[in-house]
Amino acid sequence: MEGIDLSEIKSPADIRKMNLSELTQLAAELRGTLLKKLSAHGGHIGPNLGMVEAVIALHYVFDTPEDKIVFDVSHQTYPHKMITGRMEAFTDPAHYDDVTGYTNPAESEYDLYSLGHTSSAVALAAGLAKARDLQGGKENVVAVIGDGSLSGGVAFEGLDYGATLGTNFIVVVNDNQMSIAENHGGIYADLRLLRNTNGTAEPNLFRAMGYAYRYVNYGNDLKSLIEMFRAVKDIDHPVVVHLNTMKGMGLPVAEANKEAFHFSGPFDLKSGAPLHEDNPVTEPEDYSDLFAKEMLQKMKADSKVVTITAGTPGVLGFDKARRQEAGRQFVDVGIAEQAAVDLASGLAKGGARPVAGFVSSFLQRAYDQFSQDIALNRQAATFVVFYGSMFGMNDETHLGFFDIALLSNIPDLLFLAPTCKEEFQSMLDWSVRQTELPVVIRTPGSTAVSNPEIKVLDDYSKPQYEIVRQGADVALIGAGAMFGFMSQAADLLAKEGVNVTLINPRNLSQLDTDALDALKDYKTVITAEDGIIDGGFGQKVASYLGEAPVKVVNLGLPKEFLNRYDYSELQKRCGLTPEQIAAKAMASLK
Amino acid sequence: MEGIDLSEIKSPADIRKMNLSELTQLAAELRGTLLKKLSAHGGHIGPNLGMVEAVIALHYVFDTPEDKIVFDVSHQTYPHKMITGRMEAFTDPAHYDDVTGYTNPAESEYDLYSLGHTSSAVALAAGLAKARDLQGGKENVVAVIGDGSLSGGVAFEGLDYGATLGTNFIVVVNDNQMSIAENHGGIYADLRLLRNTNGTAEPNLFRAMGYAYRYVNYGNDLKSLIEMFRAVKDIDHPVVVHLNTMKGMGLPVAEANKEAFHFSGPFDLKSGAPLHEDNPVTEPEDYSDLFAKEMLQKMKADSKVVTITAGTPGVLGFDKARRQEAGRQFVDVGIAEQAAVDLASGLAKGGARPVAGFVSSFLQRAYDQFSQDIALNRQAATFVVFYGSMFGMNDETHLGFFDIALLSNIPDLLFLAPTCKEEFQSMLDWSVRQTELPVVIRTPGSTAVSNPEIKVLDDYSKPQYEIVRQGADVALIGAGAMFGFMSQAADLLAKEGVNVTLINPRNLSQLDTDALDALKDYKTVITAEDGIIDGGFGQKVASYLGEAPVKVVNLGLPKEFLNRYDYSELQKRCGLTPEQIAAKAMASLK
Repeated sequence: MEGIDLSEIKSPADIRKMNLSELTQLAAELRGTLLKKLSAHGGHIGPNLGMVEAVIALHYVFDTPEDKIVFDVSHQTYPHKMITGRMEAFTDPAHYDDVTGYTNPAESEYDLYSLGHTSSAVALAAGLAKARDLQGGKENVVAVIGDGSLSGGVAFEGLDYGATLGTNFIVVVNDNQMSIAENHGGIYADLRLLRNTNGTAEPNLFRAMGYAYRYVNYGNDLKSLIEMFRAVKDIDHPVVVHLNTMKGMGLPVAEANKEAFHFSGPFDLKSGAPLHEDNPVTEPEDYSDLFAKEMLQKMKADSKVVTITAGTPGVLGFDKARRQEAGRQFVDVGIAEQAAVDLASGLAKGGARPVAGFVSSFLQRAYDQFSQDIALNRQAATFVVFYGSMFGMNDETHLGFFDIALLSNIPDLLFLAPTCKEEFQSMLDWSVRQTELPVVIRTPGSTAVSNPEIKVLDDYSKPQYEIVRQGADVALIGAGAMFGFMSQAADLLAKEGVNVTLINPRNLSQLDTDALDALKDYKTVITAEDGIIDGGFGQKVASYLGEAPVKVVNLGLPKEFLNRYDYSELQKRCGLTPEQIAAKAMASLK
Repeated sequence: MEGIDLSEIKSPADIRKMNLSELTQLAAELRGTLLKKLSAHGGHIGPNLGMVEAVIALHYVFDTPEDKIVFDVSHQTYPHKMITGRMEAFTDPAHYDDVTGYTNPAESEYDLYSLGHTSSAVALAAGLAKARDLQGGKENVVAVIGDGSLSGGVAFEGLDYGATLGTNFIVVVNDNQMSIAENHGGIYADLRLLRNTNGTAEPNLFRAMGYAYRYVNYGNDLKSLIEMFRAVKDIDHPVVVHLNTMKGMGLPVAEANKEAFHFSGPFDLKSGAPLHEDNPVTEPEDYSDLFAKEMLQKMKADSKVVTITAGTPGVLGFDKARRQEAGRQFVDVGIAEQAAVDLASGLAKGGARPVAGFVSSFLQRAYDQFSQDIALNRQAATFVVFYGSMFGMNDETHLGFFDIALLSNIPDLLFLAPTCKEEFQSMLDWSVRQTELPVVIRTPGSTAVSNPEIKVLDDYSKPQYEIVRQGADVALIGAGAMFGFMSQAADLLAKEGVNVTLINPRNLSQLDTDALDALKDYKTVITAEDGIIDGGFGQKVASYLGEAPVKVVNLGLPKEFLNRYDYSELQKRCGLTPEQIAAKAMASLK
């Protein structure tokens, strides 16, 4: 058999001409190419390796792009990108960064959405199917969703509605028996039962929701997949096609270590060892690790302390060993942020001490629960935000700079922004200790910065700004990770003989009006926060001081969905470098 | 049999002494008392009449308050309140308003939460159960959830997690075969199948999720209920108890008209006729009715226009007749706001013209979908917000003044605030016509106010403030429903010879910087919005003008969970009466 020239694969039309043996070879070559790129470049390893055959079979059988495929999360779409005109971004290292890690309509007509959050594909596809039906179209509509994503509420809502369409609607469940970590939830026992019975058992979740049901036990076998997709193509009613696939297939170390190889940086292809091993001596400490250590201590000291994650234990610093160490005091609810917040509410109500950790971009799925079940009911739960920073993830789907505007405007929800690790620890200690208030603590960036001079408090319930440096005329109020830049700006100004007031506000949901009143006759107050300006902290200060003579300048991020931006460039664009802040202060003195 | 003196029922202990015949009489008397209060006072009719027996049986069998019951939505808890120490609020008209319409921990230790949004009870109860397990407790934990609420994603998330508890966890599904309107979704076919087979059929949604399952076909029969609750009391694993109940039981007109009698104002007990019949001549038009009429026209003119609701068709003005008229162009996804927003996204992507309407307080469940699937993906769907106003619902669980802060800070999501019905219609026309932008249109209060002098635009995509009156020194910027008060204030000032500038901003998500630049040398700019000040429109203005000489005053609501407040008092407290606004303007001129 001759080799396949991947550069000849320009679109799915090129693979539809192939026979099964050629397709099998294509799968092997795509997988080999993926392994080469992923080991050198990093990325979502397991999800893509497990989906090579299914993606080939989908494009082989369905008439994309007329037939429409919505990939949930879309972190499994590298093979899809390879066969829809973007091969070079996988074969040529110089072009590795030409594509994003998710589907992206700007790249290709085969990509319907820019998606990065889980569980939405079924409801989105239901909308496409309904639009088709209203217009008399005949195309197939396919949603591809992983077993892990099924635990998200919107997946269920989408399945529930989709079942009523009564027309062509194909939901492919890619069951690789894993979320990012192991799955958690009652539905996974049913998925296991179905796998163990070749799809024949009852109860069957999908039938219970109104779907016809088909099962493919060899979800990495092209022949089985092609036969199944041919069988459901042009079906006239909603159907779930349940695929049993192997996450990380073709990379033994990934098959064996599914959690570690869900997403990974560059690694050695043979051993699986990271190419850039963390060195505990030279590598900076991060807030995930710090948090996990703190929580393990607290949980040991008090059996009522509980740590909660919604499917991202690694973000909280809880690897498998630490999860085992925590035992029943560590709860992973699966990808289900709403339930995580409500669970915390119930735990607090029941006298336990819950601490839930979230990626900034994902906690926004639980706004209603934060508002109703936590804040309105004043349940003393603690929520720790990770990657809530312009220096966090920079994919447009995972931005970490909206959470201040989102959560700090909820009544009775205390939003704390520590500026360094000592302050973070102090706030976490206090929050877990107290039993009166719901508290959000936002870790400042990812690298844990130490500032032994920080003045910590015994009680953070009332707004109390820290006047770090008392000056005159100009005040710099730096929230969270921005405090460091403000502090450096104050140093630069001091060198110029300008003595400004430097403030760490600590609290972004309530104003310390005494501290602000003392600034009313200043020339200028400059605020800086690690989030969008709109709806954020600085605008509250501007509003409060709106009738005072003092001028107010709010620094922060523009209200934009930025994508794969350069951190330094963005900082400059926002006027957030120490030099820019110092220059702004100097200008205001003239 | 002697009558039961309801005033003697001080707590569940008083009913635990009764025999079945006394309990049956109690049920009859509670129902009669409820009917008397509800017909005179209004309230949630159907849900409460259907749950009288189940609530009695729950408190009879379980050792409340040690055993814990979380009622979902909690609009069905009037009988619960009656037998937990609050009888007088139902028997004595002078005390009818002593209790809220939902569970309320401030009223009773039997009320665990202040709840008013649906679908959260299971996850909350799971937290209580987990807290019990960590502390070695033995109490029963019971969640009571209606069939309608099951369609909400967080209900599914809670069920999925709760199944893994492995300990006592009792989910009572009150299946009255209705949401507020009829149910929509694939799971309802399964519930029907279970009812039709006395709970014996497969597939079984609850078993598929990992629960033991019990069925009560006569969910209004005390004997059956008591036997079942006794059977599951102290159970050592998660179980679903599925009750087949009759919504509106005991009021024939409510049994026959379940949607109309889900919630109703005062009505005639015999005929069911409203005591205060809407008079189409004298009653003011409301935005629900206006919206439905507009949408019916648009749907007739274009088969690609779709109206979407998440379980509240009546709020959108779509009664049964109008839903039938709209046919397949009207979609009710059930109580599933996330899916509603994603469905709109899919419809827009597929070339249809979706318009989804939400109650302000409920749309907050879909923030992530607004952000990711609508705004980031720039899908041209229209979202109409109802009751988004301080003059909307005033229960703390249903407040309508958080949505500006919530949605106007999402990038690329246009937030329009019409000030009158002509402007609302113009914005709706434009939004449905255009295919570039996602748009939120917030109806100004509930009563449709006419202002034929309003200047409507052909295109609302760019921020363009309407300078309604050109004055000097002071500018009044009145958003949405606040424009009317600002306009009246301008009139008052004109009578004093003070000519202020009056502005309708139209757009609350983007600033018209040209218009604001023209105000930089004014003495004062006063903004007013029908929402909390924090995170809202006015603070954006204050921030933008922060370095200009002009003073800025932001009027709006405090960031508080207000409860059953008086509308006029709140308006005064916020300085939002025309007289107060005029006085503020006058003071700033001195």
